[in-house]
Amino acid sequence: MTSIPGYTYGTTQLSSSPLTMEDLEQLKASVLFTAEDARALAEAGEILSGRVDEILDVWYGFVGANPHLVASFAGPDGVPIAAYLDAVRRRFGQWILDTCARPYDQAWLDYQHEIGLRHARAGKNRTDGVVAAPVVPLGHVIALIVPIVVTIRPFLEKGGGSTADVERMHAAWFKSVTLQVALWSRGYVAPEDH
Amino acid sequence: MTSIPGYTYGTTQLSSSPLTMEDLEQLKASVLFTAEDARALAEAGEILSGRVDEILDVWYGFVGANPHLVASFAGPDGVPIAAYLDAVRRRFGQWILDTCARPYDQAWLDYQHEIGLRHARAGKNRTDGVVAAPVVPLGHVIALIVPIVVTIRPFLEKGGGSTADVERMHAAWFKSVTLQVALWSRGYVAPEDH
Repeated sequence: MTSIPGYTYGTTQLSSSPLTMEDLEQLKASVLFTAEDARALAEAGEILSGRVDEILDVWYGFVGANPHLVASFAGPDGVPIAAYLDAVRRRFGQWILDTCARPYDQAWLDYQHEIGLRHARAGKNRTDGVVAAPVVPLGHVIALIVPIVVTIRPFLEKGGGSTADVERMHAAWFKSVTLQVALWSRGYVAPEDH
Repeated sequence: MTSIPGYTYGTTQLSSSPLTMEDLEQLKASVLFTAEDARALAEAGEILSGRVDEILDVWYGFVGANPHLVASFAGPDGVPIAAYLDAVRRRFGQWILDTCARPYDQAWLDYQHEIGLRHARAGKNRTDGVVAAPVVPLGHVIALIVPIVVTIRPFLEKGGGSTADVERMHAAWFKSVTLQVALWSRGYVAPEDH
């Protein structure tokens, strides 16, 4: 695997998440995430791992078609920064794989916190050393749960499993994406409000 | 219709949402919400309106089974406040109907902002005059998208429509719930971070 710029999963560069494993367990309960979902995601990963670029084409096509979304990648002149888009794209691809295959342990929790910070004002642009929009608006981070969930289903269907298999994998994906956005939102609010 | 305590939709008691109709249009674009979804929700409303209490039984059962969720309804002694649970339940039932049948116009946007404030520190407990937990944690407000979406499907299926009909209504419900949580999150963050 070639190294991905700014992908610091499991490294000492990361600080610990302010959330505990108990906080994670409670959020998992709120999204109905169980060990069965973790197994379904592992299966999904086998299907999706060969199609990461196709998936990213769909997502980047959607972002590119919506000026209010692409604005997060734009510099002060309003022009999207190509190198920034590319760097995020490579990490976004790895995020698909991590969502499916990583254990949701302390290292995973720590990296979720880092992802949240990179969307929020506290850490936006820092990783890539760019001068771009100072924050990804929280409302849109939450809203994007829908396209990220809806658009993955056709790719899961390409695995050739039964409708029940696809629904099991798709439900697990929905739960995980929502769980992660819930974790990322910590980067936007006071500790006592999360 | 009997009046629901604290249900102030469309009244002069409400302040205007700080979000504009253009902000709403952008969030609708982010969740892929179209006029077709509004029609599907109207259909869903015809099915769900006769089953509101059954749906609330499922949701309250889930909240009641999770101490970290029922904590939002508890007083300083840690005991859930029955009158508070009941008042919220009546508005929650009306919320199902409003989600399906109301036009997503300025009055709807204003009430979404009010709902957000009632979850956030700024307005929690004010409506019902209770001394309870000072905030519904943002992470769990986001996480609850999953159970609110997953559990509605069996009720939509009771309408007797085709699988395609159910999926159309269910997708519209998912988009609307996520859109609303995105709007509510405004009550938790600085304007420039939303």
